[in-house]
Amino acid sequence: MSKKIVVVKAHKDEVAMQIVRDTAAKYGYTAELYGSLDEAKPHLEDAEIIHGMGMGLLKYAPNAKWYCISSAGVNGYDADYFDERGVLVSNSAGTYGTTIAEHIIMMATMIMRHMFMFEDYRRSGTWLGQQDIHEDFRTLCGSRILVLGTGNLGATFASRVRSFEPASIIGGSRSGREVKEFDRVVKMDELDSELPNYDLIVMCLPGTPETDNILNKERLALLSKDAIIINVGRGNAIDEEALVEALKNDRIAAAALDVFKEEPLPEESPLWHTKNLYVTPHVSGQETAHITRELNMRMFAEDIENYCEGRPLKYAVDLRRGY
Amino acid sequence: MSKKIVVVKAHKDEVAMQIVRDTAAKYGYTAELYGSLDEAKPHLEDAEIIHGMGMGLLKYAPNAKWYCISSAGVNGYDADYFDERGVLVSNSAGTYGTTIAEHIIMMATMIMRHMFMFEDYRRSGTWLGQQDIHEDFRTLCGSRILVLGTGNLGATFASRVRSFEPASIIGGSRSGREVKEFDRVVKMDELDSELPNYDLIVMCLPGTPETDNILNKERLALLSKDAIIINVGRGNAIDEEALVEALKNDRIAAAALDVFKEEPLPEESPLWHTKNLYVTPHVSGQETAHITRELNMRMFAEDIENYCEGRPLKYAVDLRRGY
Repeated sequence: MSKKIVVVKAHKDEVAMQIVRDTAAKYGYTAELYGSLDEAKPHLEDAEIIHGMGMGLLKYAPNAKWYCISSAGVNGYDADYFDERGVLVSNSAGTYGTTIAEHIIMMATMIMRHMFMFEDYRRSGTWLGQQDIHEDFRTLCGSRILVLGTGNLGATFASRVRSFEPASIIGGSRSGREVKEFDRVVKMDELDSELPNYDLIVMCLPGTPETDNILNKERLALLSKDAIIINVGRGNAIDEEALVEALKNDRIAAAALDVFKEEPLPEESPLWHTKNLYVTPHVSGQETAHITRELNMRMFAEDIENYCEGRPLKYAVDLRRGY
Repeated sequence: MSKKIVVVKAHKDEVAMQIVRDTAAKYGYTAELYGSLDEAKPHLEDAEIIHGMGMGLLKYAPNAKWYCISSAGVNGYDADYFDERGVLVSNSAGTYGTTIAEHIIMMATMIMRHMFMFEDYRRSGTWLGQQDIHEDFRTLCGSRILVLGTGNLGATFASRVRSFEPASIIGGSRSGREVKEFDRVVKMDELDSELPNYDLIVMCLPGTPETDNILNKERLALLSKDAIIINVGRGNAIDEEALVEALKNDRIAAAALDVFKEEPLPEESPLWHTKNLYVTPHVSGQETAHITRELNMRMFAEDIENYCEGRPLKYAVDLRRGY
């Protein structure tokens, strides 16, 4: 058995990878970086530790003892298969809060400041004068914000948006456990009475059976007419058909979705062309920013130390619970 | 002479106006709100206090003793005319920081996250997969930020962006006087040695002869290839031709301009269609958000009290200095 670590990343970032190489070397491991599963395949046979995404990677690595999943979400991973093979599993929750918080604030301000409309005018080279702007701008300052999911994503967003002086930042979680970044945290089963009170609803939930359609038709009907929904968690959490209906009928103000029930979002999906609905192709997180890749590798290196020193993995994840 | 206040606002906001009406009533004044100079004209003859924009308003108000200008910038106002007539003058600096800070952060994140490109794909209903995103995202987190102008706009932006954990937030001002929102403040005449060191340059300068083309061809050449420029101050501060050249030749990364040497920006201006240059039609501030209109009226009401109690105006402005 060779002491070998294989890392698979769509963005090959040698600067970030060096963090892993340095830690690996301390314990006599080699660490290799590949840009895709295909590229990595010939090198997975004797890998002891693997880092990347998807079940494919593990299946080509028959000798792997630990799989570090590079995403925060772990839906789509077969817990039974891990158990049978006795493979340790960790994930990368904690990596994405920084970049996703910036995405949320970008989308919220774009919607609040009618930036999608101004893009029409910019693209046609037309100045839209003050007197021709009939809709109010809104601001994060003074907004009542509800964040569903109080983990790394929700809490990082809350810590950023606090400085804009919103009226309130309330969290929502299964347990209702207090988290310092929020004014208070409500339990998910108190959601119905809470929903009417917010200007901005940010969804940072993991994809689990419990979060399936948590924003369903009945709950969408409870929202304020001014409500803006931003989903950066998982697509399962919103009844997409009901959302399209709510937007078509102006029952809520707008929605920005970065995650969907089906990804890639099919060409024929009505979500692409629904009024006041803004699609981004699951880019709020991912490893498109160097800072994310570096944080991701730092956390992995931390657990390489734990693994090599015989300590439990800090970022171990429960695949059945989903986080 | 009747005790009369006339307010002219493109956005007639009765909720915000009530603040002024209440204060006016305490001192036996009436306060009237009109949507345009044309609408206000028949009512200006006997107004003692006027609030709005432009020299026209003052010229139709021969009995005005105090003109409160509703903008922060006061270029275009004839100081001699005010002096000859002995009219007090104040402005509304301090009103716009909240909304403009959100504009700056919106534009910076849109550029850093390639949102203008993603808009192309969204509009055509096309999913852009991870593997097809070749350019790095950047984040405010870790960015080196230079803010030219350390007044209300710059300082409010700095206070917001601080929570994103940028590498540094440095201010630039004529005096170099320390302002608590910045790590340090450099003098404008130290600018040349500072400019190469920043990822994001935010311009919040007033329109004065001193700020004319402060970002000229030579200084643009000093910027980093990754530099992003955002101008929300006044259009006079940038040599627009040199900026277009710098962007065309990829000497800097991008620019977002909300203010221009000539406004409305003429249809034939190359700024509309220059690569990586994003035009908004002077909407970063203005009174498009209720929160701005409310703050604007609160400050005006504060000075109505000062005026009626015989105290100096808190928001008095020096038209010759420009702020």
